[in-house]
Amino acid sequence: MNAMRTDDGVTLAVSTVIFALGERGLRIPLVRRIREPFDGRWALPGGPILVEEGLESAARRNLLATTGVRSTYLEQLYCFGDPDRSPNERVISIVYWALVRSDEAALAAENENVRWFPADDLPELAFDHNVIVAYALSRLRTKMEYSQIAHAFLGPTFTLAELREVYEAVLSRPLDPANFRRQVEKSLIDTGERLTGARHRPPRLYRYDASPATKDEASHVVS
Amino acid sequence: MNAMRTDDGVTLAVSTVIFALGERGLRIPLVRRIREPFDGRWALPGGPILVEEGLESAARRNLLATTGVRSTYLEQLYCFGDPDRSPNERVISIVYWALVRSDEAALAAENENVRWFPADDLPELAFDHNVIVAYALSRLRTKMEYSQIAHAFLGPTFTLAELREVYEAVLSRPLDPANFRRQVEKSLIDTGERLTGARHRPPRLYRYDASPATKDEASHVVS
Repeated sequence: MNAMRTDDGVTLAVSTVIFALGERGLRIPLVRRIREPFDGRWALPGGPILVEEGLESAARRNLLATTGVRSTYLEQLYCFGDPDRSPNERVISIVYWALVRSDEAALAAENENVRWFPADDLPELAFDHNVIVAYALSRLRTKMEYSQIAHAFLGPTFTLAELREVYEAVLSRPLDPANFRRQVEKSLIDTGERLTGARHRPPRLYRYDASPATKDEASHVVS
Repeated sequence: MNAMRTDDGVTLAVSTVIFALGERGLRIPLVRRIREPFDGRWALPGGPILVEEGLESAARRNLLATTGVRSTYLEQLYCFGDPDRSPNERVISIVYWALVRSDEAALAAENENVRWFPADDLPELAFDHNVIVAYALSRLRTKMEYSQIAHAFLGPTFTLAELREVYEAVLSRPLDPANFRRQVEKSLIDTGERLTGARHRPPRLYRYDASPATKDEASHVVS
């Protein structure tokens, strides 16, 4: 169960960027470093890859061990390997990212060394982790424009207002409700049900259209 | 200048998937292995990462050394690291991909140990390289539908027929010329020039619209 570290002092590691949607927008969990380099700074949760372990398993294991977040779905983001990204040794980090629903995020308690931060207002992090988070945010925003990734923040059914709030949180700006409705409606299916509650006109509940034509990657140029 | 290899026998490597557009469709260069494992099998060009070298530089250096292909642009595809992808040791491969124009590809001579193969009709390759090529092909096809990546196969100006040929080669199927024109025209700029030659009605030359609104990632859902 040795971690991967070469004779030359090169270390292989995994890190994860976890996005959750809180009441005050998009948030990510960070872990306080308790040793050099960057002792005391906040960093992405992560750790070593064990020799007998797959990369995604390593990411999931380290995420759970450091933050208590259990994410069923992780996607590989990028492998960061600039020779000078760590001061005294070379560290090559394979970074995963995921979206978790706020109820999943709520299970991960904060403590002195684990805290959730607003994704667009982070302190100066250890290593190149600010760059990594910025890259993950950009990937999330791009992907939300051509796929159904917003789904990951929502339950199986949702109102148009709930879906718009996800987009507004990820993009950090308000969207016009009528324009938004027009643009997303074709990829949604009206469940015929309405949000239960005491309201006079409860809003409709939608779900994503999972048919091949609209699923995941939309087909734009080629028909 | 040692390659990265841990005490445990874990090796870090880079590989590249290079796509070129030939007269008979999409082609990729492969290198014949001359040692075990998979002695004699064809494999993706690649090799070790040197300790002082960036990942992309390592990919570019190995590509040139093994195939003679000099690609100015490489993009990271994925990091493949399943524990059992190589029979006797663990190899973690950071894979890059690129498109090259046919004139760039032509500079790389074939020999007994370097050959260009049709991308959709490969022999059984070493390691998990068939899986890697399939993944790269899928990424190329997806990306072509929402970005201007087809551009990489063409010069700065091109006819609609040339652009359609790129799409047909990548997608391995014919496209209706009128539909294709309608779908791509909005992202193209008519240069006002025409293809020179002896034809009675030489076709118009286009270039991609590089304005932010249409460049690279198109904006679909959110306005």
